[in-house]
Amino acid sequence: MRLHWRAANYLALGQIFLRGNPLMREALTLDHLKDEVFSCWGTIPGINLIYTHLNRLIKQRSLQMMLVVGPGHGCAALIGNAYLDGSYSRLDPPFKQGRDSIERLFCRFGYQTFAHDVPAIPGTIQSGYELGYSLAHAVGAVFDNKDLIACCIIGDGEAETATLSASWHLPAYLNPLTDGAVLPVVHLNQYKIAARSSLSYLSNARLTSLFTGLGYKPYIVEGADPELVHMLLAGAMDQAADDIEAIRREASDREVKVRSLCPIILLKTPKGWTGPKLISGEPFEGSATALKLQRLFMADVDFYLKLLERWLHSYTIKSLFDSAGHLLPEPAAWIPEEKLTLSGCPHANGGLLREELKLPPLEEYGVETDADREDPASERHLPLAFYLREIIALNGLNFRLFSSDCNNSALFLAPIFSITQRVSPTDEIDRERLDEKPARVVEILSQTVCQALLEGYLLSGRHGLYICSEQHSNLVVSMLGRYANWISRAAEIDWRKEVSSFNYLQISTLWSPKLAQASCTPGFAAAAIEQRSGVTNLFFPADAGTLLAVTENCLKATNCINSIVVDAHSQDGWLTVGQGRKHAAAGLSIWSWAGSEKEEKEKVESASGPDLVLCSVGAIPTREMLQAVKILRGILPQLSIRVVNVVWLNKLQSPEFHPAGLEADRFDQIFPPDVPAVFAYHGYLTEIYTVLGERLEGRRLKVKGYRGCYADSSLQNHLIANELDRFHLALAALDLIDRNDGQLASAKDSIKSLMIEGF
Amino acid sequence: MRLHWRAANYLALGQIFLRGNPLMREALTLDHLKDEVFSCWGTIPGINLIYTHLNRLIKQRSLQMMLVVGPGHGCAALIGNAYLDGSYSRLDPPFKQGRDSIERLFCRFGYQTFAHDVPAIPGTIQSGYELGYSLAHAVGAVFDNKDLIACCIIGDGEAETATLSASWHLPAYLNPLTDGAVLPVVHLNQYKIAARSSLSYLSNARLTSLFTGLGYKPYIVEGADPELVHMLLAGAMDQAADDIEAIRREASDREVKVRSLCPIILLKTPKGWTGPKLISGEPFEGSATALKLQRLFMADVDFYLKLLERWLHSYTIKSLFDSAGHLLPEPAAWIPEEKLTLSGCPHANGGLLREELKLPPLEEYGVETDADREDPASERHLPLAFYLREIIALNGLNFRLFSSDCNNSALFLAPIFSITQRVSPTDEIDRERLDEKPARVVEILSQTVCQALLEGYLLSGRHGLYICSEQHSNLVVSMLGRYANWISRAAEIDWRKEVSSFNYLQISTLWSPKLAQASCTPGFAAAAIEQRSGVTNLFFPADAGTLLAVTENCLKATNCINSIVVDAHSQDGWLTVGQGRKHAAAGLSIWSWAGSEKEEKEKVESASGPDLVLCSVGAIPTREMLQAVKILRGILPQLSIRVVNVVWLNKLQSPEFHPAGLEADRFDQIFPPDVPAVFAYHGYLTEIYTVLGERLEGRRLKVKGYRGCYADSSLQNHLIANELDRFHLALAALDLIDRNDGQLASAKDSIKSLMIEGF
Repeated sequence: MRLHWRAANYLALGQIFLRGNPLMREALTLDHLKDEVFSCWGTIPGINLIYTHLNRLIKQRSLQMMLVVGPGHGCAALIGNAYLDGSYSRLDPPFKQGRDSIERLFCRFGYQTFAHDVPAIPGTIQSGYELGYSLAHAVGAVFDNKDLIACCIIGDGEAETATLSASWHLPAYLNPLTDGAVLPVVHLNQYKIAARSSLSYLSNARLTSLFTGLGYKPYIVEGADPELVHMLLAGAMDQAADDIEAIRREASDREVKVRSLCPIILLKTPKGWTGPKLISGEPFEGSATALKLQRLFMADVDFYLKLLERWLHSYTIKSLFDSAGHLLPEPAAWIPEEKLTLSGCPHANGGLLREELKLPPLEEYGVETDADREDPASERHLPLAFYLREIIALNGLNFRLFSSDCNNSALFLAPIFSITQRVSPTDEIDRERLDEKPARVVEILSQTVCQALLEGYLLSGRHGLYICSEQHSNLVVSMLGRYANWISRAAEIDWRKEVSSFNYLQISTLWSPKLAQASCTPGFAAAAIEQRSGVTNLFFPADAGTLLAVTENCLKATNCINSIVVDAHSQDGWLTVGQGRKHAAAGLSIWSWAGSEKEEKEKVESASGPDLVLCSVGAIPTREMLQAVKILRGILPQLSIRVVNVVWLNKLQSPEFHPAGLEADRFDQIFPPDVPAVFAYHGYLTEIYTVLGERLEGRRLKVKGYRGCYADSSLQNHLIANELDRFHLALAALDLIDRNDGQLASAKDSIKSLMIEGF
Repeated sequence: MRLHWRAANYLALGQIFLRGNPLMREALTLDHLKDEVFSCWGTIPGINLIYTHLNRLIKQRSLQMMLVVGPGHGCAALIGNAYLDGSYSRLDPPFKQGRDSIERLFCRFGYQTFAHDVPAIPGTIQSGYELGYSLAHAVGAVFDNKDLIACCIIGDGEAETATLSASWHLPAYLNPLTDGAVLPVVHLNQYKIAARSSLSYLSNARLTSLFTGLGYKPYIVEGADPELVHMLLAGAMDQAADDIEAIRREASDREVKVRSLCPIILLKTPKGWTGPKLISGEPFEGSATALKLQRLFMADVDFYLKLLERWLHSYTIKSLFDSAGHLLPEPAAWIPEEKLTLSGCPHANGGLLREELKLPPLEEYGVETDADREDPASERHLPLAFYLREIIALNGLNFRLFSSDCNNSALFLAPIFSITQRVSPTDEIDRERLDEKPARVVEILSQTVCQALLEGYLLSGRHGLYICSEQHSNLVVSMLGRYANWISRAAEIDWRKEVSSFNYLQISTLWSPKLAQASCTPGFAAAAIEQRSGVTNLFFPADAGTLLAVTENCLKATNCINSIVVDAHSQDGWLTVGQGRKHAAAGLSIWSWAGSEKEEKEKVESASGPDLVLCSVGAIPTREMLQAVKILRGILPQLSIRVVNVVWLNKLQSPEFHPAGLEADRFDQIFPPDVPAVFAYHGYLTEIYTVLGERLEGRRLKVKGYRGCYADSSLQNHLIANELDRFHLALAALDLIDRNDGQLASAKDSIKSLMIEGF
């Protein structure tokens, strides 16, 4: 194991500094060095050490393990280990061990493999750079994966982040009857890059107290001497594995009512471990990063070369690789068979294991159109909630709902709780209750924790929905961007199989009663539109049929991120499920039944368009827009109005910005350039400008949306304050008609007096 | 104290349900009830109980205390207590105790006082709805306020959030020599609205272990019987106050090297305490919220009225108020003198205490223009860093820097660390080190914690800067929105005095080397632009002089939020400090020295504009744009080019969207509608469309910005990939010229061949 660790350390250090002389058989010269240093050393020896010891555990006990690495700058360790495991062939096929491969490995690092190539590293589901999500990713991956153990390395910096701090409680949400286990390894070296970390000043007694309080059984492994640490860590790993086995055993023993505590290893080693102790009198190991070396390089090249040479040789290269660069049998002794290696873990390439979601036929949840309903406002939301209930019933351990907002989900989801329940944080094993109602809803009052859990769940091959409120979805803006990056880059890697889409169901919207109005702040949709990877889609179904169809599409989709805004106060029935399906597929349609164009098809293709285009996006704007059309048609029956409904917002974008965007000629067919148009949009006004972008040029149009105006008590007043009500929409349409006659003026007056009368 | 608590509970319950019969001297009828229930009861009795007990502590020990209330739905408790304290006059002046005032208090709740009126509640610095920021707000408020104790109430739900979970470590960042103290009271009732909370399943032994590990001295107060809880809580409060006194004493004893632990009270009472035990056989107290009552109302009005009547009378109203509605002496006995009341806490109206920041004259940090500099690229950033250093030196305990990103701040801020240091989390009191270098930099690896700390610091009357990296600033999008709401609403309340602006200094930008490119995700600027309150400003200074001037302006400003993007790799010297000041004040200027218009003034005002307008926003785009102008002038010397530089992005918005926005006629003067224009923008391309919005209509323009394209290794390649380099900008300009002649075509060819040659 000593040798394996040295081999991993050597390969990592080589990646950072070398571009030649891969086996160090020659004296080190400047020609062997890279021009730039792309990583630092701080966390690498720790990751390698844990990797080595996990290998032994896996091999000895035939465990299926996954490794989630929290600390940034750890790529070189993971890539080096993938080399040792043999999974490196995925990174750079074809691949054959030996001197040339090591040289290639070294040369590629920082150029071909780095940074935005993280999905290219086999065995990982965790992108770097923004810290805090590792433990939630690990827990998400072991949900409903009884045989999987996810080891999660958490550094000082990561432990200081908000999301990770909230994640300490997550093992209490694991059910030993159906879920796997996590093994957190907190790798403490006192620093977060340059400053002291929040955990750094706690004594071992306090750390023990803290993690015991959090529900863990802590094992502290501390030292700077590798021999000692190897011994202590091996012991701690064995005990932790025993603990996890005990938890599994208890699960199958119906007498056991309280599960054992989750093990956690606190590994305290020096920062920059195994590096030079001192450089020019300044401490290196225990305080700093490899980047310091590059500064030294400027000052004294000879000294630098000698130091680096000594450091590289300290790993006793000849005991690791033969002269052809093949790994010797001793360091390879504990490497598991390929399918059990950490870098080969199939759960980290979830698409491999993914089973299709079973979806009930939508028609059973079909909504009557308004015409055949007695009370069009009745049974709001129920079709979707019943549909979700059936999906839960059909899919066993393959589907979960995640939600941070208990109150809203309680109202919205009420029907599903007849067959399922929320996952409770507990150390009791309540077999009866869980048999009766499997817990498929994870509710944790942290949006970022929920997002990371679902990411982990999807990336390990399952299906899910994130039910959030539009009021608070901007809490995950940065994670949305990061996940979009991951998804789009992973899609380019052929051995990564497709994973289910990440679906947001946004309820409790901007237009909800006063609670929402006061607490809404912008950000989510704007950031989603700004994503340039084209994997992010925004849906605003205007009625229950379209909502069902959109939800079905999103649940079937892979490798993308979808947001569906569901207005809890409006589930109109404009379309049948069948019509909704067509509409959802098109993304936007001309609703000829609502407009006053005589022959739609002809008009679209002919040069002469309608007098006006009225376009709506979202349930409430659509309801108001259709009323506006009624008003206009009542007052000015001769007006030729085209009604367009947009359900897939990105359709309005230029194809340059989103692959779903309509081509210019198709866009111009639907929105003829010389015909004035009114847009009524569910979200913040500025977003629709962003979406239309250059398409605004040279057009006469008026855009209405949420302007951040608050109004008390009623939706109507709120709509009026934001000028998105039927009257303002009708007036906006007339304002665009460039004609100065008495009829128009009197039409405006009629609308104004209607407005005073109210809805 | 029993009576004070009852009075507070009665006033809160009255606010929720009553609009008449304020002293319950008549039998309760439907006419006395509000049509809607605006709050729930879950957390109110607990807040009131803590308030009552803090009153006693304050009065007995003459303490200056502030109360920060985490749980949502607590407004009715705070407003009721403000009534009892006498501070209610601020909410509804003029004010005189008595029956009518109580009726008015009840009637206003949910209508005049609620939700977005939170800044109207005296004594608070904490807006509701998005949980998690209370403890960081409290710690921010006691930084550099040695005599202040902030009691912070944290509920089950809040304790589950990410930011609060990370905040548990914050007391370790308090320095007893100069900072005040916090007293967290964790109010546990097992539930977060509808589901079990993460802390709910922990035994008292585990809770004790957890909080001991986190560095606290925990006191558990548990019970459902009010008498018992009063007794236990009084004891715990006394012990906590003793602990805080001990910490203060130790601070003045130079022999003491380790401070005592921070006290924390864990208060476990039933949810909905003092409410009906059962309603129709279903438990109410201990499980649910007052909203349940409203559902009951639908079912059985008589039962509902009787139940509510019994509940209201359970507070023994006649022992609280006389027949005229005046508070009787007994419940009033422990209310402190007005200036010490929690609702009258001057620190919660920080503008009252705010002292102006001392700013050194900018000219001392003046930057030479490029012309008189030997190496224009030298001394990057140093002027601003030295300026900040001097501000730290001048302002003692009145100014702090907050930063989540140690690495970046370390490089950028290096010069300041000769006189200051980072605040270390510790329980040691290192007097010598702190005497030598006062710790004025708070670095915690959580963006949301840093944001909340600075909010608390500013709202309690001090000054500060948040140094973040543009790569990660989208982590605080939701908090930005919430703080903007607070600031804009607080500005409308006349007793709230102006507080210093919240200033973001965004370093390590989209255009930083590859590390940044791979980790950038959009969101911050888009969300800032979407804020409709007009208090959010985005600055993109293009050179060092303008940067200094903008920083000065932002530090002087009050009641707003400013973001300054500082590109770490570009500190050009286009303007002197004096010119920078003028430019910063104008927000955007025509740089006639860079353009080729002959007589700027004449042109602006005459109908005939230039042939082209080239406009840049941000340091790197400006550098490229000026090079593009050089190229164009070299190739087509007869072209009349206007160069516009924008430092204050919001100037480009319509005044309807931002108060700084240019009026249409002024905008048309600078950007004549018939003159094609190229915009080169620092940030995401979509943002500039959002900013220009309707102004795009009918114009010929080309917008270049960050398109999310990654390129390896160099800024130049990165610029080219995003088409923001000098050559693409020059070509974009020529593309806009609607002329089909050979000269133009050959000009394009020359530029293309220049591009191939490279920079």
